[in-house]
Amino acid sequence: MKKKYLLAPGPTPVPERALADMALPVIHHRAPEYVPILQEVRDNLKYLFQTKQEVLIFTSSGTGAMEGCVSNLLSAGDHALAVRGGKFGERWFDICKAYSVNVEAIDVEWGYAVKLEQVESALKKNPEIKAVFIQASETSTGVYHPVKEIADIVRKRNNTILVVDAITALGVVNLPQDEWGIDAVVTGSQKALMLPPGLAFVSLSDKAWSFAEKSNLPKYYFNFKKEKKSLEKNQNAYTPNVQLIVGLREVLREIKEEGLEQVFKRHADLANATRQAVQALGLKLYTVDKPSNALTAVWAPEGMDAGKITKLIREKYGITIAGGQDAAKGKIFRIAHLGYSGYFDVITAISALEAVLKELGYKFETGAGLKAAQKALFGE
Amino acid sequence: MKKKYLLAPGPTPVPERALADMALPVIHHRAPEYVPILQEVRDNLKYLFQTKQEVLIFTSSGTGAMEGCVSNLLSAGDHALAVRGGKFGERWFDICKAYSVNVEAIDVEWGYAVKLEQVESALKKNPEIKAVFIQASETSTGVYHPVKEIADIVRKRNNTILVVDAITALGVVNLPQDEWGIDAVVTGSQKALMLPPGLAFVSLSDKAWSFAEKSNLPKYYFNFKKEKKSLEKNQNAYTPNVQLIVGLREVLREIKEEGLEQVFKRHADLANATRQAVQALGLKLYTVDKPSNALTAVWAPEGMDAGKITKLIREKYGITIAGGQDAAKGKIFRIAHLGYSGYFDVITAISALEAVLKELGYKFETGAGLKAAQKALFGE
Repeated sequence: MKKKYLLAPGPTPVPERALADMALPVIHHRAPEYVPILQEVRDNLKYLFQTKQEVLIFTSSGTGAMEGCVSNLLSAGDHALAVRGGKFGERWFDICKAYSVNVEAIDVEWGYAVKLEQVESALKKNPEIKAVFIQASETSTGVYHPVKEIADIVRKRNNTILVVDAITALGVVNLPQDEWGIDAVVTGSQKALMLPPGLAFVSLSDKAWSFAEKSNLPKYYFNFKKEKKSLEKNQNAYTPNVQLIVGLREVLREIKEEGLEQVFKRHADLANATRQAVQALGLKLYTVDKPSNALTAVWAPEGMDAGKITKLIREKYGITIAGGQDAAKGKIFRIAHLGYSGYFDVITAISALEAVLKELGYKFETGAGLKAAQKALFGE
Repeated sequence: MKKKYLLAPGPTPVPERALADMALPVIHHRAPEYVPILQEVRDNLKYLFQTKQEVLIFTSSGTGAMEGCVSNLLSAGDHALAVRGGKFGERWFDICKAYSVNVEAIDVEWGYAVKLEQVESALKKNPEIKAVFIQASETSTGVYHPVKEIADIVRKRNNTILVVDAITALGVVNLPQDEWGIDAVVTGSQKALMLPPGLAFVSLSDKAWSFAEKSNLPKYYFNFKKEKKSLEKNQNAYTPNVQLIVGLREVLREIKEEGLEQVFKRHADLANATRQAVQALGLKLYTVDKPSNALTAVWAPEGMDAGKITKLIREKYGITIAGGQDAAKGKIFRIAHLGYSGYFDVITAISALEAVLKELGYKFETGAGLKAAQKALFGE
């Protein structure tokens, strides 16, 4: 018997009560029993997004809602700016390209956050830029970009919006859409929302909605105006994944019960403990500036293939963590602590990591990582 | 206690074993344990589609794959033909319009199948037509269009493909893609595949793939070439709905175990019994030519609002059937018999229908519908 642990930055573990709810027979999405479920979900999504806007729901992975932000907010020939400091920044760039948007990139070294001056100067150089695309938490590098400060810059320009991929940030760190004036916030179901993959969400500011009015790019399934109109009648435009909506009701209740402030503090505590622990083992954080609280990206010890760590930790101890992607492949491993995660998930991850590093011949004082995590979590 | 029955044309009931499998903790879509699941699913989808082609899998509702057929197979300014004989035929037309395709429609009266001469003459009149879009089973009217014969017509034209929305047809009636030479077959998870909504599928012929090579319309999430390339490496391009893929493994096993031939026969038997029963009650079939085996669409008795039937049958007996959509709203009701459906679902539907019609004041001989259904299912 090998007990299984999912500690990757998405999909993440699903709370038992949500799994149970989703195992119930399917209900029809136009039947009266669906009405209060969707209503509650819509209300609580506003709480999660910290917005008074309608949060759009799509049956797709997060990428679908990202694409929708391009096809619904821009028009043919528009100019855009993408912060490209990881795999998901590249995705913003690629989606813009697919729609023939004149996109330019700010290339940021992997592991680093974009500098405000870079954004300011790019916007100054090209006053035609209508949208800035960025990740809040760039999952491939573990970087948290300075969303609030960038929102302050973009807000001053009447004809530019800020579109934030918050797929591993929303429900992890404080990201109050209305207060900060973020024009579009995207997330997915399989991260801090603690559900299986299959739902994507996006919420727009009034300014972004005015862009949507003018957009002429082709769209059909990811049609923001159509979905908003349907949701305001408490319906989904197209057949939704009913099971996930039922699960969503439960996880949103759990988030609301814990309270956003405590949810953010929990993630910060877990992230801090994980960072302390890996550094106590003599390992180096991959994320230089500034680490996301969703996951901790770590360089493998000098000369060691990171793939060996992720493989051994899975095969021997049943724990799924993530390796590096693209440029970081084989060089780093990533331990997630987002969603349905608690103190002992960190302790488990560090314990297994110590065991695996020892087996792979890396030298350190046994228990040093655990001791650091324990101190960080519970005090000296 | 009111026992619940889902007898609508999608979502449909999910087999208990699939529900149980989907209630298990989420596995990671890049982990080794996902590999044999996706491999088995890919193999068995080929069995279901009766094709040697890779069947593409998207996390979305069926509409997403329909949109993908337009954006991946056509180019800006191309000409297309849509058979518009119901709500879903309209959808083909609308998607083409959204992508600025020069689409013309064959308008078919609701309740009727398109005539072969209509297709032939439209194609003759406009030799530029590159794609014919049609439903196999038009769910809004219960009509089965003559797919095989239309495929015979389209196949003769080197520069035209036939794209079939088989969302309520695949796994209901025989629709052998390769043998009939259908260029694109679309389906969704929540119909004969007996799963919750959330997955869409599409399989292309070699001819359609050659169209995909030339297409220049914008696409990103529904990128057929990208998804094919990923699947050939036994991966999904974007994070898939893992729970539904796990459920899909189970339902495809069940379909394979029953055997396609028997699956089709079962649906034909249930459809026939339902049609016999409603007619024995003096009701008129809405579908004149030719009824789909997925569902039976029926006119409400003269002067009776069909909405009363669907409402009462749900509220009093816990049974969800469907009303009419758009033009047919309030006029018809639709009883589905697709997917995880058996003899006694028909018996249950007819028993409840009799009870409700009686309560609403319609005159008929009690038990006449049941008697007809019983004879049809079990012999005289």
